[in-house]
Amino acid sequence: MSTAIAATNHQFKLASRPTGAATRENFSYGEEPVAQPAEGGVLVKTLMLSLDPAMRGWMNEGKSYIPPVQIGEVMRAGGVGRVVASKNPAFAVGDVVYGTLGVQEYALVSADEVKRSGLVKIDLKAGTAGQWLNVLGMPGMTGYFGLLDVGLAKAGDTVVVSGAAGAVGQTVGQLAKIKGCRAIGIAGGTAKCEWVVKELGFDACIDYKAGPGAVREGLKEHAPKGVDVYFDNVGGEILDTVMAKLARKARIVICGAISQYNNANSMPAAGPKNYLSLLVNRARMEGMVVFDYADRYHIAIAEMAGYLKDGRMKSREDIVQGIEKFPEALGKLFSGENFGKLVLEVAKD
Amino acid sequence: MSTAIAATNHQFKLASRPTGAATRENFSYGEEPVAQPAEGGVLVKTLMLSLDPAMRGWMNEGKSYIPPVQIGEVMRAGGVGRVVASKNPAFAVGDVVYGTLGVQEYALVSADEVKRSGLVKIDLKAGTAGQWLNVLGMPGMTGYFGLLDVGLAKAGDTVVVSGAAGAVGQTVGQLAKIKGCRAIGIAGGTAKCEWVVKELGFDACIDYKAGPGAVREGLKEHAPKGVDVYFDNVGGEILDTVMAKLARKARIVICGAISQYNNANSMPAAGPKNYLSLLVNRARMEGMVVFDYADRYHIAIAEMAGYLKDGRMKSREDIVQGIEKFPEALGKLFSGENFGKLVLEVAKD
Repeated sequence: MSTAIAATNHQFKLASRPTGAATRENFSYGEEPVAQPAEGGVLVKTLMLSLDPAMRGWMNEGKSYIPPVQIGEVMRAGGVGRVVASKNPAFAVGDVVYGTLGVQEYALVSADEVKRSGLVKIDLKAGTAGQWLNVLGMPGMTGYFGLLDVGLAKAGDTVVVSGAAGAVGQTVGQLAKIKGCRAIGIAGGTAKCEWVVKELGFDACIDYKAGPGAVREGLKEHAPKGVDVYFDNVGGEILDTVMAKLARKARIVICGAISQYNNANSMPAAGPKNYLSLLVNRARMEGMVVFDYADRYHIAIAEMAGYLKDGRMKSREDIVQGIEKFPEALGKLFSGENFGKLVLEVAKD
Repeated sequence: MSTAIAATNHQFKLASRPTGAATRENFSYGEEPVAQPAEGGVLVKTLMLSLDPAMRGWMNEGKSYIPPVQIGEVMRAGGVGRVVASKNPAFAVGDVVYGTLGVQEYALVSADEVKRSGLVKIDLKAGTAGQWLNVLGMPGMTGYFGLLDVGLAKAGDTVVVSGAAGAVGQTVGQLAKIKGCRAIGIAGGTAKCEWVVKELGFDACIDYKAGPGAVREGLKEHAPKGVDVYFDNVGGEILDTVMAKLARKARIVICGAISQYNNANSMPAAGPKNYLSLLVNRARMEGMVVFDYADRYHIAIAEMAGYLKDGRMKSREDIVQGIEKFPEALGKLFSGENFGKLVLEVAKD
């Protein structure tokens, strides 16, 4: 473990708001001297950052579930790091922590942020840094509370999840299996679909890139009695197609809509045109934001760490190395190139 | 009361499936001799029929919450009638009943239909025939269970209802007030809006015909803290506009989408493009079909009859006279011409 502190802190700041996909031009890459923490604060060296679809939303102006990143601010990102200087008795040099570190090599976490639980100690014995950003992190928590608290999945249900090979999707499908449900993934490409079925143990996976009608036909085959829980990570046409196959009293969990995030408008252009299927099937569509469940993260983490340990749950990360690769790495999320939870390794230790 | 039986039974049968609005050409108007009931059956003379947006859906082919009306069948309609002949000990000549009588002067209700609770005795002391098709009937039940069971309205909530001057809308708004909510209607035209506020006691009513942006501006003024419950009777643009003004943890009740029913396709063309507001606001959109609550109708009817009696609830019907007017009367629903619950008076007594 290295707690030596470099002289400079490389950072990506938001330079302009994208109107479509975010590119390198929307960020400025620069450096500043590494500062020392004030009373109650902590200096954290970034090890690994989480790259998430939601980041695209944070770059838009306007009301959302959290404020947008301001122009000139360090781009927001959650990550795992190591404490390298501390003026807070709760954190010692060498501690591994999770927090909103930002896309930078060193994060100064203020006393105020620490107070607002903005920094939590994590145990690398329960999972790797990558796993703490995946199954044990926000995606895992999103999958856990989305599937169980919002989707109300119970044994015997047919659960369909889009983005099945992604960070949230892999948790949802594996957890559905553990809870006695039938798990059907939707993912892009045969490699992802094979992995989801053979490695993660989903009952089936539908390759939405296999041609027009692939999702409709796949649902007909794999969910002949209809879909009880649909965990939607993508929105768009796939949401529409699944809506046409709902079972009575189905629950749709809306946790994102990656197909819509790059629209030039801040709101998506296409609504689910089959939404009256909710009426016919007395079904429900409900949005969730993982932060609402913060007071129960510890319960979910303990449960999921157990599954990781006994091998019932697997966690796959797609690791891009080097902070300077940030904009291109972020782009992989939206082109569907990533395979597993996308993370950016900023430092080894 | 007249229990004399005429020789002929005038009927409207479905002649063809409409592609758009239903017109007289989609029905055949004819007559047949009045038949006598078989063992266990009842002959009912139609007094008043309920005309509802859902009827347009029953004319379409394909899966819905109940089977479509077949070509050549008497058009389905709920109504109030008087028993004029009975071979069932549970019904005596002179009894007033509610059931699916169809658009005809006399309905033969079979032993089997009676067994499946297809015919229930009603008490004209609790409400007029028109009120039994309105506040005490399916629209009232839809409003009651939609607002309370699906919408989970509670004192202090801001409740918005579209089609406020319609059958379901008037129940929803008045019931919301009784339960301690703030009630805001959306209706077309100043006459309806005035009636909703002055006669029914809504806190406000937004005239969606007042110009572009009227609904958005109206919500800004009357629901500054956002909408807790939106009871949607219309779908389309109004649904989209309300979605942009949801409060945290809002509930949208989908009970119909009259703006979409006349589409040439059986499914609507436009989905709610602001549906990601569900995500941001952790909100829910849920469909309901009133028949699911049949085992609790008696509870709701008793409660609502009490409100009618003590004057806390008013019930307005728009009465069209004469069975031969059926197709044109049905058209009034979709042009927004009706003012109050639309009913067709087939016979006085």
